[in-house]
Amino acid sequence: MNVSILNIGDELLIGQVVNTNAARMAQMLNAAGMEVARTAVIGDNREDILSALLSMLDNSDAVLMTGGLGPTKDDITKHVLCEFFGATLVENAEALANVHRLFEAMHLEVTPINRQQAWVPDCCTMINNLRGTAPGMWFELPKTGQVVVSLPGVPYEMEGLMTDEVVPRLRAHFRTAHVIHKNILVQGIGESFLSDLIESWEKSLPSTIRLAYLPQAGMVKLRLTARGDDRHALENQIADALNGFYPLAGQYVVGEDFETLAEALAAQFTRRGFTLATAESCTGGTIASRLTALAGASAYFRGGVVAYSNEVKECALGVEHETLLQHGAVSEATVRQMAEGVRQRLGADYGVATSGIAGPTGGTAGKPVGTVWMAVASPTGITTRVKQFGNDRQRVIERATNEVMAMLLHSLTEK
Amino acid sequence: MNVSILNIGDELLIGQVVNTNAARMAQMLNAAGMEVARTAVIGDNREDILSALLSMLDNSDAVLMTGGLGPTKDDITKHVLCEFFGATLVENAEALANVHRLFEAMHLEVTPINRQQAWVPDCCTMINNLRGTAPGMWFELPKTGQVVVSLPGVPYEMEGLMTDEVVPRLRAHFRTAHVIHKNILVQGIGESFLSDLIESWEKSLPSTIRLAYLPQAGMVKLRLTARGDDRHALENQIADALNGFYPLAGQYVVGEDFETLAEALAAQFTRRGFTLATAESCTGGTIASRLTALAGASAYFRGGVVAYSNEVKECALGVEHETLLQHGAVSEATVRQMAEGVRQRLGADYGVATSGIAGPTGGTAGKPVGTVWMAVASPTGITTRVKQFGNDRQRVIERATNEVMAMLLHSLTEK
Repeated sequence: MNVSILNIGDELLIGQVVNTNAARMAQMLNAAGMEVARTAVIGDNREDILSALLSMLDNSDAVLMTGGLGPTKDDITKHVLCEFFGATLVENAEALANVHRLFEAMHLEVTPINRQQAWVPDCCTMINNLRGTAPGMWFELPKTGQVVVSLPGVPYEMEGLMTDEVVPRLRAHFRTAHVIHKNILVQGIGESFLSDLIESWEKSLPSTIRLAYLPQAGMVKLRLTARGDDRHALENQIADALNGFYPLAGQYVVGEDFETLAEALAAQFTRRGFTLATAESCTGGTIASRLTALAGASAYFRGGVVAYSNEVKECALGVEHETLLQHGAVSEATVRQMAEGVRQRLGADYGVATSGIAGPTGGTAGKPVGTVWMAVASPTGITTRVKQFGNDRQRVIERATNEVMAMLLHSLTEK
Repeated sequence: MNVSILNIGDELLIGQVVNTNAARMAQMLNAAGMEVARTAVIGDNREDILSALLSMLDNSDAVLMTGGLGPTKDDITKHVLCEFFGATLVENAEALANVHRLFEAMHLEVTPINRQQAWVPDCCTMINNLRGTAPGMWFELPKTGQVVVSLPGVPYEMEGLMTDEVVPRLRAHFRTAHVIHKNILVQGIGESFLSDLIESWEKSLPSTIRLAYLPQAGMVKLRLTARGDDRHALENQIADALNGFYPLAGQYVVGEDFETLAEALAAQFTRRGFTLATAESCTGGTIASRLTALAGASAYFRGGVVAYSNEVKECALGVEHETLLQHGAVSEATVRQMAEGVRQRLGADYGVATSGIAGPTGGTAGKPVGTVWMAVASPTGITTRVKQFGNDRQRVIERATNEVMAMLLHSLTEK
């Protein structure tokens, strides 16, 4: 079974909004054993919507659309779907009750423009949207059994509707094969070197397993995907594949079955009962933000200091004035004191610190843009590392965040 | 002139990586006056690449492709392009020199697999990639003058090649109309209410101007796009449109010509010479991370405290133990002390604070999940606000971040 995703919205085409919906929908469909063959983005434009729908229905069992369902003039998806299916808009009582419920909760009156949100094509099944005023819509093509679903583009409304309604309905409507994904997070080796290292293993994988290299800033995520009818057999094949992998490249593995280093860290800290504090200069709160984005972070994350200025490094972390004068903020001596300072002052078992030059300015001959010192302070000592992460600000921040998280994970799991 | 973007990669189709390339490329093309008509994502699959290329060339002047140029087995774009154009792979001396240069800088040896990166189809113009080993490739269809460009999928390599080479070459190859975008950031009013408020104005806009509503968490970005041959006339039309807008909805405007609140804040702080410190509980470093993602943040951002635990609120921010006991961490009294505490301790002019329940657990009847207290401390006083941001963790963090940034911007610009 094969799904196409069609995201509609001028804002996506001019690049002001990154299309996270396609990725999130693909994740949810894959997890449920449905394969996404293609995704496309088009504008709020009648001809483009009609032709994309036609072409996707040419080679897909289902087309999932998002966007263009808002109350404003530029949102035309509903009207175009009426045209496509030869349908008429009718007011849906359940959808209207939902609009009233949402507006009452906000102590607002329903205006005529809001009321229009409850109108849906008469040939579709309305899917009630508990999180917003635009309902989802489910269409079936009677001759082929193909399905077209239209969902609002607001990410958390789309996600709620996918989870509660669309994925279960698709599973009921289509028969789906089993799909198992296995992630291996690898750090400290480049993609091509890793590929050389595991070439023989890769060639020996059974045809039911597909391997993908997913490089991220300073990391590679390997994804094994097994697909077939016998779930148990697939699980065994994945286990066999892992057994062959570890002797070759196990030393670079920082986690399994996690999407991100933050998830791997959260699992380790929670399991071991340790606590963590962060002292960030050049990463500017990104490490803390990654950790606290995950539910349950308060179990192990005590807090952090974003020590952007030297004064804050001194007053909030206890870095010595002399150290800053003598070695500078971007130095091993400074990150050591930052990591140990935050560990002690915030009463945590572990402390991590970053100090570097994210750029584009601030570099010197001795410390060019991209230089980052990192430290991990544990109950038994401090480890430090310096790296050169290039001259792209966002990439320096990303790579430093990943690198120090990997250092922390190594430090935790070595014990 | 009309461009299609084709991003290739299995990782995008299973949703493990969000496709930021399409948005970034669209931004750059739009800024240069080129319109993106559609974008699509397909897997590393021969048939899909061939059919997407054919169908995009049906209605585009140029097709920009990314991805599938890595050194590993699953990357097949180069081979498929050879097939499409009836070409043969040949080693390119300049590309090979580039591979050697990059590896020497890392003190690594060039393996045979790396050397293959320098092979390109013999019918294309090689575009040297200073940031990575996979070169860009420029193809022209002689009869139609259409262009196909293939770029690596690594975002910062793609971006470098687009800026340095592809956009200038496209502008030279095609004649392009003028496009002007004007953003207005609006906060404190929902999309449908805003639409009602400015309906008459919207209807009176000239046909050369298009209006889009781009809702974000707790904000709406309005985008006016003017397109035509006379740049000066377009600028006047945009100015007229703004003159009509402000009397209707000016009170909700938090910024113009900025993509984000962080950019608007950076401009205000830098212009006014004030400094800022942050005290974050539920937003967990996200405010600091947003601010420091922008170059030049060190001019006004002194730093922050991520006060996730109550102990950190006390020891690092000076929140009184009594206050926490009596009112709890999520209270007006606590955020007041957090904002004023971080302002004083970090020696800043302004301090902002958040404390809330991001969820999914931790809510009570009196303080349900989604409750967030926010405060802005300025040299002249403290303002606070409480909001209910729903029960989606990521959304609570996003909306609290936006809301307190908007409060701060109001506080700065009121003076």
